[in-house]
Amino acid sequence: MIEITDSDGVRVITFNRPEARNAFNVAMYREVTDAIDAAGATDELRALVLTGRGSAFSAGQDLGEMARIAAGEPNDGIAGGFPALIDALAGCPKPILAAVNGVGVGLGLTLLAHCDVVLIDETARLRAPFAELGVPPEAGSSYLLPARLGWQQAARVLLCADWISAKEAVDAGIALRACAEGTVLDETIEVARRLAGYPPEAVQEIKRLMRAPERSAVDDALRRENDAFSRLLGSAANQQALARFATRRK
Amino acid sequence: MIEITDSDGVRVITFNRPEARNAFNVAMYREVTDAIDAAGATDELRALVLTGRGSAFSAGQDLGEMARIAAGEPNDGIAGGFPALIDALAGCPKPILAAVNGVGVGLGLTLLAHCDVVLIDETARLRAPFAELGVPPEAGSSYLLPARLGWQQAARVLLCADWISAKEAVDAGIALRACAEGTVLDETIEVARRLAGYPPEAVQEIKRLMRAPERSAVDDALRRENDAFSRLLGSAANQQALARFATRRK
Amino acid sequence: MIEITDSDGVRVITFNRPEARNAFNVAMYREVTDAIDAAGATDELRALVLTGRGSAFSAGQDLGEMARIAAGEPNDGIAGGFPALIDALAGCPKPILAAVNGVGVGLGLTLLAHCDVVLIDETARLRAPFAELGVPPEAGSSYLLPARLGWQQAARVLLCADWISAKEAVDAGIALRACAEGTVLDETIEVARRLAGYPPEAVQEIKRLMRAPERSAVDDALRRENDAFSRLLGSAANQQALARFATRRK
Repeated sequence: MIEITDSDGVRVITFNRPEARNAFNVAMYREVTDAIDAAGATDELRALVLTGRGSAFSAGQDLGEMARIAAGEPNDGIAGGFPALIDALAGCPKPILAAVNGVGVGLGLTLLAHCDVVLIDETARLRAPFAELGVPPEAGSSYLLPARLGWQQAARVLLCADWISAKEAVDAGIALRACAEGTVLDETIEVARRLAGYPPEAVQEIKRLMRAPERSAVDDALRRENDAFSRLLGSAANQQALARFATRRK
Repeated sequence: MIEITDSDGVRVITFNRPEARNAFNVAMYREVTDAIDAAGATDELRALVLTGRGSAFSAGQDLGEMARIAAGEPNDGIAGGFPALIDALAGCPKPILAAVNGVGVGLGLTLLAHCDVVLIDETARLRAPFAELGVPPEAGSSYLLPARLGWQQAARVLLCADWISAKEAVDAGIALRACAEGTVLDETIEVARRLAGYPPEAVQEIKRLMRAPERSAVDDALRRENDAFSRLLGSAANQQALARFATRRK
Repeated sequence: MIEITDSDGVRVITFNRPEARNAFNVAMYREVTDAIDAAGATDELRALVLTGRGSAFSAGQDLGEMARIAAGEPNDGIAGGFPALIDALAGCPKPILAAVNGVGVGLGLTLLAHCDVVLIDETARLRAPFAELGVPPEAGSSYLLPARLGWQQAARVLLCADWISAKEAVDAGIALRACAEGTVLDETIEVARRLAGYPPEAVQEIKRLMRAPERSAVDDALRRENDAFSRLLGSAANQQALARFATRRK
C-alpha cells in the first residue's frame, strides 16, 4: 500500500493505492503508521516526507469501508487504524513534510495540519466533505483548521465543504508554497535535506517546542470529535449521505 | 427595529434603524436576541443571516444611550441588552452568516467574530473606535480580533482605531470574501442555503466542535472586558471623548 | 549602547551598537530594559518605539558572548540580561512599537512578537538561525511565532531558518506594513503619536486585554525554551555550529 525510500537522512513515504486515489483503508493506515514510527526511532533518519503516487495525494478515509462500518459491520480494524496514524503523526519527534502532489480529500486535507512543512503542486486542490457526508471533522481538524487557516477559511472548508485551490491553500496558510506542476516532491525533498543537515537535537527541540502549546487542545478536539463521530456515524442522514456520495462519484 | 424573513431553511434578520445607521439601542438588542434564540429553537430553520437596511451594517452601540449611561443614568436596560445578544450569538447552535452591506462600527465590527461566515460589500468599511472613545474592547474582541485578524491587524483595529476596508477585512481574515456592490445579501443567502441543504446534525456538530476550543477564552475575555468597562465608563476622559465624538459626527 | 529621545509623549529607544550590528550584549540588555521600565513608570510617556542605528535593526544575541557562555564561562550576566528584557517587554503597560530599519536576526526577529505595532523598512529582512546554531527558540517564540505568522511560515522561520523579506513579514503578519526605504522611523513615530493622543487609561486597558489571553502560554513557552537551552547550549553540536557560524560570518 506504500513505498518507502530512505536517502540522505530523509524517509519518503509514498501512498501507493492509485486505483483508490490513495484512500486510507485499515491496511494502509497500519503501514503508514509503522513507517512513521520506525523513522522516529531510527537515528540516521532526520526528516520524513509524505506524498502520493498518481494523480491524488489521498482521497482520505476509504468510503466503502466507512459505509460498511456505518451499516453496522464490526469496526475493530478502523479503531486501530485511524487513531494510531494520528498518534504517530502527532507523536513523531522529527519534522514531517508533505509533498501534496494532487487532490487531497478528508484526511488527505486534515493530516496536513499535523505536518510541519507542506508544499503543494499548483494543480492540486483540497476538500473536506464532512458536512455533506453527515459526519463531524476528524484528526483534530475542528481545532487545527481554524488555527492554521483562520476562522473564515476554516468555516469555508469545514462548514461549506468547498474545494480550495493550491493558491488558496497557500494564502490561507495550510501550505507554505505552491510548486510548478510535477516538481513538488523534488522541492519538498530539498527542504527535508536542508532540515536533515542541521543539528538533529536542535531541530527536534524546535519541533517539540512549537507543538507543545497546542498539544492539549488537539487532544481535547480529538476526544470531542470521536464522541461526535459515535453519535453521527450510521445515522439515517449519514447513511443516505454516504449512498448519495458514492452514487455521484460513479 | 428589525425585519425577519424565513425562507428555504434560512432566517434573515435585517437591522432596520437606518435613521441611526442601525445602531443598537436596548430595544434593538432585545429584538435581535429574540430572533436568534427563536431560530435556534426552530427545527425548520438551519442557518441565520444578519444584515442591515440602508447604507450601514451597524453603527454599533447607540452612543446617545452610552453617553446617558456614562453620565450616570440607570443602566439596567443595557445590561439586559448587550450581554444577552452576545450570549445568543455565542450560544446559537446553527451557523450564523453576516452580509455586511455597509459600514460597521464598534459592535458592527466586533459581532462579526461571532459569525461563522462573513461576506462584505466591496464598498463597506469597518472600525472599532474604542481607544478614541476611552472605552475597552467589547464582545470578546480583545481575544477574538487577535485570533481572527492576527496580532498586527488587531492592534491596528483596536489600538490605532483605524478604518479597514472590505479588501483589508478579507486579507486579514475577518471576512471570507468581498462582493460586488449591492450583491452581498444575495451571495450570503446562497451560502446559507447551501449549508441548510447539508444534514443539520452534522452542520451543528461542526459548528459546535469549531467553537468549543475558544469558548473559555471568549468567556474570560468578556469578564475582563466587563471589569474594564466598569472602571473606564463615565471617567472624565471617557465623557470628554464621547462629547468630542458626538460633536464631530454632527 | 542606546539613545533615548522623548517627545510628544513618545519615547524612542535606538539600539546604538552599529559596529556589532546592534547585537545585544549584557550591557545593552540592561540599558534597553531600564529604558522600557522607566517609560512604563513615567506618566507623560504614552508609547515607546524601538529602532536601530545604522543598517541593522539588531543582530540579536551577541554570538561572541554566547560562544564564551557555551564554552563554560560564568553566565550570571546573561541571566540578568535577556530574561529581564523579556520581562520588561512583556510587562510594559504602554504600547511598544518597532521601527525595523534593517536586518533583524534571532532576538532581532523574535522580540517583534512582543511589540504591539511593527513597521518595517521595505529593504529589511529577518532570520532566526536557531536550527543552524543548534539552539532552541527563545523569547517565547516557539509559541508566539506560530501565533503571529501561522504554522507554515513559523516552521519556515524556526525549522528551516530561512530569511524572510519585509514583504513576507507583512504578508505573514509579524509586521503591519512595509515602508519606503528610510522612512520607517518617521512613520512609526507618527503612529505612536496617534496612540499617545488617545485617553491613556483606555489605550493601556486595550493592550492589557489583548495580551492577557496569551500571557500564560508565553510564560509556559519561556519555561520550556529555557529548559531546552540548558540542555543544548554547550553541546558538541552547538559548539561546532557556533564556530562554523562565526567562521562564515568573517
